[in-house]
Amino acid sequence: MEKLRLVSSNKIFGGYQKVFSHESSELKCTMNFSIYLPPQVEGDVKLPVIFYLSGLTCTEQNFITKAGFQRYAAEHGIIVVGPDTSPRGIKIQGDNESWDFGVSAGFYLDATKEPWSTNYRMGSYVNKELYELIQAAFPVVDPDRIGIMGHSMGGHGALVSTLRNPGLYKSVSAFAPICNPSKCPWGEKAFTGYLGENKTEWASWDATELVKKYNGPPLTLLLDQGAGDKFYIEKQLLPENIVEACRSAGVPVILNLREDYDHSYYYISTFIGEHFDFHAKILKS
Amino acid sequence: MEKLRLVSSNKIFGGYQKVFSHESSELKCTMNFSIYLPPQVEGDVKLPVIFYLSGLTCTEQNFITKAGFQRYAAEHGIIVVGPDTSPRGIKIQGDNESWDFGVSAGFYLDATKEPWSTNYRMGSYVNKELYELIQAAFPVVDPDRIGIMGHSMGGHGALVSTLRNPGLYKSVSAFAPICNPSKCPWGEKAFTGYLGENKTEWASWDATELVKKYNGPPLTLLLDQGAGDKFYIEKQLLPENIVEACRSAGVPVILNLREDYDHSYYYISTFIGEHFDFHAKILKS
Repeated sequence: MEKLRLVSSNKIFGGYQKVFSHESSELKCTMNFSIYLPPQVEGDVKLPVIFYLSGLTCTEQNFITKAGFQRYAAEHGIIVVGPDTSPRGIKIQGDNESWDFGVSAGFYLDATKEPWSTNYRMGSYVNKELYELIQAAFPVVDPDRIGIMGHSMGGHGALVSTLRNPGLYKSVSAFAPICNPSKCPWGEKAFTGYLGENKTEWASWDATELVKKYNGPPLTLLLDQGAGDKFYIEKQLLPENIVEACRSAGVPVILNLREDYDHSYYYISTFIGEHFDFHAKILKS
Repeated sequence: MEKLRLVSSNKIFGGYQKVFSHESSELKCTMNFSIYLPPQVEGDVKLPVIFYLSGLTCTEQNFITKAGFQRYAAEHGIIVVGPDTSPRGIKIQGDNESWDFGVSAGFYLDATKEPWSTNYRMGSYVNKELYELIQAAFPVVDPDRIGIMGHSMGGHGALVSTLRNPGLYKSVSAFAPICNPSKCPWGEKAFTGYLGENKTEWASWDATELVKKYNGPPLTLLLDQGAGDKFYIEKQLLPENIVEACRSAGVPVILNLREDYDHSYYYISTFIGEHFDFHAKILKS
């Protein structure tokens, strides 16, 4: 663990919520990530892991302080890892001008357009560098039982990470995910900025496009959406598009619409227990 | 409800976490408070209420976003009200110089020393004004089933509010409370500032002193303390003092020491379910 520096450690539900920082080779900057180690890490058995990808404007802190997931992770004996949402401490012109592009808005993809392509490689960071780092630094992790979930931009990140890398994540779920970024204002802005105008490249980072060609191990997508979520109503999220794509491609999908719930962690905290049950059923089977 | 202005409303665990603002006559300023209305408010039955008093540096937001209590409140059908920690928007010289005195450090007492005595009346605000306002504005509240809990400065506030006003709160519990403010640095600073040098007055706002003379309805104090809490180790909290006072006065007390837990909401979120069980047993009996 020499590459990791402990930022904080707090006991919660019998385990420890920790934050570490490290030097990322993909992002070329210092990054924080969170890891919840449930009480079962004291045993001799390797444990499953769920990665959680946060949404726009978040750091690694929002999820660990507001979602209340540690109770469920402790009940199931699951380690939970949460990366930050973009490179940090890099100065790129325009990276701080809006809350939906640049800092805290990395979209979990690998940028190809200058000046973003050097650092904005959140796709490779999450799915290669951090994925491997966690296994190397925490031998208690079972490499065959890794799942992923996320919220909003991070919900899309969870879907894309799973669909682009068949078998890497055994289970996937998403709260209020951006489902079809090529067709919504948030996605159009981010993809134009990070990827340029090439729509073929857009399709390779768009969950709704990717699911149409999915050809990996059997997978069920669990999607959750608050019906009172203003971003859903404004058509930033478009879950109907990915559901239709899943049905035409024969990929099982569950979409739970939650009456009057919004886009906040109040909503996530209400249903994250159900998501842990879903992941546990797959990861612990 | 014409006196209340809705600040926010978010659905969580089937109920609604709301924040209201109002003009406080005791504090002579605009105050926010939170109220969680569980799904059972839709029924015909009046519901119990728990007041939650927060600690130093907090607003009404910390508890509602970090404690995860809404799950338990929804399970038990309990309304939960959380006031702010001091008057707001008042300019008094010195009110912003330190985090443990003045703004966000009202200590839930009625100041008698100038210049604090005009506004810093959090004792009367919580136990009279807000107590009555909640009942008037929310007829679903059962006036005979009201409990109180709190954290740190607010844990002391919960104890003092109960002990000074026998019968007002049927159940009381505290996380990492300041137990004997006359004997710790935080309390000495606050009491000197708000009350002056009169030690008899100090005793009338000190839970350990008050419990020695308690002569109200039967009451069990539930105290919770993280053994790894640095403020406990630094002797700001002194739970042993109130336990000894309770035993000599014949007031039942439970002190749960939690190995390696600290002073944070990570700790509170782990045990607040137990506290709701304790309050529910009394308030719903």
